[in-house]
Amino acid sequence: MDIATVVGVVVAIALILASIVVGGGSFVAFIDAPSMMVVIGGAIAATLISFPLPNFLGIFGVSMKVVFWKLDSVPELIKQIVNLAETARKDGLLALESRVSEVENDFIKLGIQMAIDGTRPEVMEDILRTEIDAVATRHRDGKALLDCMGRFAPAFGMIGTLMGLIIMLGDMSDPSKIGAGMAVALLTTLYGAIASNVVFLPFAEKLGYTNKQELLAMDIVLRGIMAIQAGENPRVIEQKLYTFVPPKARVAEEAA
Amino acid sequence: MDIATVVGVVVAIALILASIVVGGGSFVAFIDAPSMMVVIGGAIAATLISFPLPNFLGIFGVSMKVVFWKLDSVPELIKQIVNLAETARKDGLLALESRVSEVENDFIKLGIQMAIDGTRPEVMEDILRTEIDAVATRHRDGKALLDCMGRFAPAFGMIGTLMGLIIMLGDMSDPSKIGAGMAVALLTTLYGAIASNVVFLPFAEKLGYTNKQELLAMDIVLRGIMAIQAGENPRVIEQKLYTFVPPKARVAEEAA
Amino acid sequence: MDIATVVGVVVAIALILASIVVGGGSFVAFIDAPSMMVVIGGAIAATLISFPLPNFLGIFGVSMKVVFWKLDSVPELIKQIVNLAETARKDGLLALESRVSEVENDFIKLGIQMAIDGTRPEVMEDILRTEIDAVATRHRDGKALLDCMGRFAPAFGMIGTLMGLIIMLGDMSDPSKIGAGMAVALLTTLYGAIASNVVFLPFAEKLGYTNKQELLAMDIVLRGIMAIQAGENPRVIEQKLYTFVPPKARVAEEAA
Amino acid sequence: MDIATVVGVVVAIALILASIVVGGGSFVAFIDAPSMMVVIGGAIAATLISFPLPNFLGIFGVSMKVVFWKLDSVPELIKQIVNLAETARKDGLLALESRVSEVENDFIKLGIQMAIDGTRPEVMEDILRTEIDAVATRHRDGKALLDCMGRFAPAFGMIGTLMGLIIMLGDMSDPSKIGAGMAVALLTTLYGAIASNVVFLPFAEKLGYTNKQELLAMDIVLRGIMAIQAGENPRVIEQKLYTFVPPKARVAEEAA
Amino acid sequence: MDIATVVGVVVAIALILASIVVGGGSFVAFIDAPSMMVVIGGAIAATLISFPLPNFLGIFGVSMKVVFWKLDSVPELIKQIVNLAETARKDGLLALESRVSEVENDFIKLGIQMAIDGTRPEVMEDILRTEIDAVATRHRDGKALLDCMGRFAPAFGMIGTLMGLIIMLGDMSDPSKIGAGMAVALLTTLYGAIASNVVFLPFAEKLGYTNKQELLAMDIVLRGIMAIQAGENPRVIEQKLYTFVPPKARVAEEAA
Repeated sequence: MDIATVVGVVVAIALILASIVVGGGSFVAFIDAPSMMVVIGGAIAATLISFPLPNFLGIFGVSMKVVFWKLDSVPELIKQIVNLAETARKDGLLALESRVSEVENDFIKLGIQMAIDGTRPEVMEDILRTEIDAVATRHRDGKALLDCMGRFAPAFGMIGTLMGLIIMLGDMSDPSKIGAGMAVALLTTLYGAIASNVVFLPFAEKLGYTNKQELLAMDIVLRGIMAIQAGENPRVIEQKLYTFVPPKARVAEEAA
Repeated sequence: MDIATVVGVVVAIALILASIVVGGGSFVAFIDAPSMMVVIGGAIAATLISFPLPNFLGIFGVSMKVVFWKLDSVPELIKQIVNLAETARKDGLLALESRVSEVENDFIKLGIQMAIDGTRPEVMEDILRTEIDAVATRHRDGKALLDCMGRFAPAFGMIGTLMGLIIMLGDMSDPSKIGAGMAVALLTTLYGAIASNVVFLPFAEKLGYTNKQELLAMDIVLRGIMAIQAGENPRVIEQKLYTFVPPKARVAEEAA
Repeated sequence: MDIATVVGVVVAIALILASIVVGGGSFVAFIDAPSMMVVIGGAIAATLISFPLPNFLGIFGVSMKVVFWKLDSVPELIKQIVNLAETARKDGLLALESRVSEVENDFIKLGIQMAIDGTRPEVMEDILRTEIDAVATRHRDGKALLDCMGRFAPAFGMIGTLMGLIIMLGDMSDPSKIGAGMAVALLTTLYGAIASNVVFLPFAEKLGYTNKQELLAMDIVLRGIMAIQAGENPRVIEQKLYTFVPPKARVAEEAA
Repeated sequence: MDIATVVGVVVAIALILASIVVGGGSFVAFIDAPSMMVVIGGAIAATLISFPLPNFLGIFGVSMKVVFWKLDSVPELIKQIVNLAETARKDGLLALESRVSEVENDFIKLGIQMAIDGTRPEVMEDILRTEIDAVATRHRDGKALLDCMGRFAPAFGMIGTLMGLIIMLGDMSDPSKIGAGMAVALLTTLYGAIASNVVFLPFAEKLGYTNKQELLAMDIVLRGIMAIQAGENPRVIEQKLYTFVPPKARVAEEAA
Repeated sequence: MDIATVVGVVVAIALILASIVVGGGSFVAFIDAPSMMVVIGGAIAATLISFPLPNFLGIFGVSMKVVFWKLDSVPELIKQIVNLAETARKDGLLALESRVSEVENDFIKLGIQMAIDGTRPEVMEDILRTEIDAVATRHRDGKALLDCMGRFAPAFGMIGTLMGLIIMLGDMSDPSKIGAGMAVALLTTLYGAIASNVVFLPFAEKLGYTNKQELLAMDIVLRGIMAIQAGENPRVIEQKLYTFVPPKARVAEEAA
């Protein structure tokens, strides 16, 4: 779980609440259910039009991933692969059968199982690459969807404010109500800005970042599994995979 | 038909109408035919200048595609191709003649017909690729046109509001009319924002998405047809095409 | 001549004029020569700084191209090339001499003349490609210039409005004049928005579109001429060039 | 010297001054030294932070280049190279020694000197390419710096206006001063918009344009010098280099 | 240490303070702790959500790098490498052992150490390239993070201003307080604009620039070390590496 994401959301909300108190405002003045509905509902509706339903429904899984994301340590992955390579070298590829259940990482599991089944190397590489592409596409679509919501939320905030202003301007018989009417009109713009800058845009940014990290890890695993299948020496595999880890990170790892 | 698009449009409109009611406004205050004409007419006029007439007229077909779009299931397509491959393998390419009529997908039909006619493989691949490019170009032009309308609608909304303000500012003899004049002036900006964020931009986004999916499916079909023409083994064709389907989707398919 | 461009410009202007009438404004209130000068003059001045003089002067030719542009029909071009190929095949390359004058398209003319002159194929291809690049560069520079004007026009509109506001704010002794002063100040922003969204940006968009179409046609011509020079069979040339025409367009052509 | 740049700057300034006179404003109202300092000083300060000092100081040379830029005519360059090639062909590479002093273009000089010194072709090409890259980098950095100033000037204009508004809003005891205070506050936004749209952005655009032209010319020179060094026939060199000049420009040249 | 960065920050702050004094404002009116907290705290919170914690904490190191950055002179690096090459040529690779401690540059040290250890050339090049990539990634992530803060700071400035306006509009019983309330509301927008344009965006720009310079230097070092390992002639190495230094810079160097 990535503590930074949770801390960031909590801090942002706390700051906004605190500044209302300090500014002498009442929380009631900042809560307006219809305004919230226009902004959030509008952003969701526009996103529903933009993407197929399954992608939209997948957004919750994707958001969870941003919050609870835990990157596999690359040196850890390499250790695991070298370990499997040693078994394969000593007792043959079929000996990996008994060890598949130990492996947590789904992608390593898929690769090892194909190696045991005797899938031809070219086919195996094609299938693993397709899986990598599928993960990349899923993340890219998720990021595109969050970016979309981050653009539509302020747009519907502005739509709501325009509608509020038009209603207010249409009835200015009681000047004392103008201020209150305008305050309510501005609420939707505020909601749009908060939803976009505290949730949608940062989550999209984070997903883009975790995507790059995960693809790098999957690429290293792919090379490792192909090397195991080719029956390469575990030491050579280790050295080859470690060239993807920067020297400094490697030293830190060895020291640990 | 993609239910998400329809739901999205309905929800967006319902939210806007509901918030007028809740906000205490009257629908009449939000309807102004000349304002609508400036925004929608202006966006259409600017788009007419930007694109040749046939592209512009094609926009309705393209929009329908966004709403009624039904992606061919890739595993379904593969099944169909493997099936055709079996016939070709058993009874020869000419035996496909009697089966062409069963095929619904126009692109498979085109390919099979050329295979039956004995078109040379290189020419066949060139022609199929040109067709794929033509589809990609048609979609890309359609998306560019919708994006254009999504940019021009708010621009003409602003032009309308500026004109309304200038008219209002030119005659301020009756202060009680200022509010109403300003409300009308703001209507065009509102129309521009709604047209852009509920229709043009989400439809453009969706078209970009469906385009990617359709091209992927066409690419798989192309490879399948070339393999049938080369007389490859149906099992090998199946395995080859399935490498384009991510393992998880494949498992789901087999379970179904 | 592309009717859509003309229709678009006429419709846009008609809509703007109509909405002034409907809004109850007088045309006089919308015409202010100094404001026009700041916006259009400013955009022209900034563009003069941005581009060399010949490019700037070429903008009128480029704009005419957008309005009066008539794309050569690709199947028409192919027919013409196949026709020339038949002459060359039957009576030799030199026999094309008598037919050069029939050809309207300058690019085909240039190619055929070089083929007659016995220019070496590699040199010929290099020269034709340079000509294609020159056309592409001319169009790209033209589009960049129109885009520039489309960005500078609203910027000078804002500059004009700021200047008008500063003048107005400096002398508020007569409150009844404030409205009129503000109306005049807003005129430059209005002019900038109209110039940008009715003329510059749509013309830039159209030029980008026609550019892509023209380059595709030139590319097909280039391949045709190289094939004629190599003495290929007219039927083979026809088939080869037709692979660049999508099947559906081809069927429509043959039916016609 | 590029007359368009000078004309553009003069016209832009004249238009702005004229519209103050026509608008009935006094020049005094538009001059405020502290406002100028905030906008120009702020843009300079932010640019100083963004780039190393030498790049920043180089901006004056780069700006002069935009104004006094004179592109070498490409056919002129080719003539010169062919001329040198004839000397080299007739009297040997060393005979070029006596002609180096005639050459004005620094890049040709550098190349010819290396050819005379007997530098190996590969090394020579590497060095000339590095010089081309260095020119490209210098121009790109110059353009990036001008673009930066074009973005920071309006930003500091807005910062100045916000500060002016805050000062004005803090003391509204004398309502008659509100207009004047606001006018002064708006001045910084006006300065930022003028500096950006009359100077920084157009100069950046122009530099990007001249850069492309200069690199093309240098590339042609590079090919010419390598051909001289290889002892190629002057006629062949001429033909080869002319393939980079579009046919129409060539005809104009020959006619001249 | 890059003096320009320090000068830029000092000048920007001095200009802002000076213009408050000149404008007749009091510093007190410009300081509001809660407003600062919303803008800076909000930007930090949103960035915390967008990036993993280690990246966020690394921002201070990265910022220091922008201020205290001292680019290794490329001719200096080449001299050092040629010097090491001479030792290796005369006394063998192992003789470099005694000289490693003299070398300051960590990247040269890493390479030389591997050469001494007898690492195979391919592995050595892979490892050095991975280190270059790691530096590039670290810088790119740092730039992305600063860019993010540069976008979020004005967004939270706007959020703060909206909240201030809503509070002010909710209680307009005392008209004399409206001005002061609005002044405070505008403060957050001002803070956001200053933080973004004086700190975040310029620092991001600078980091992007230093990154390019450092990668170029590392690339030259990599080639030098591989050449030392291959036992190439020090003169040849020098000539090869100097082809990456533009002729003019080289002349300046030799003259020095």
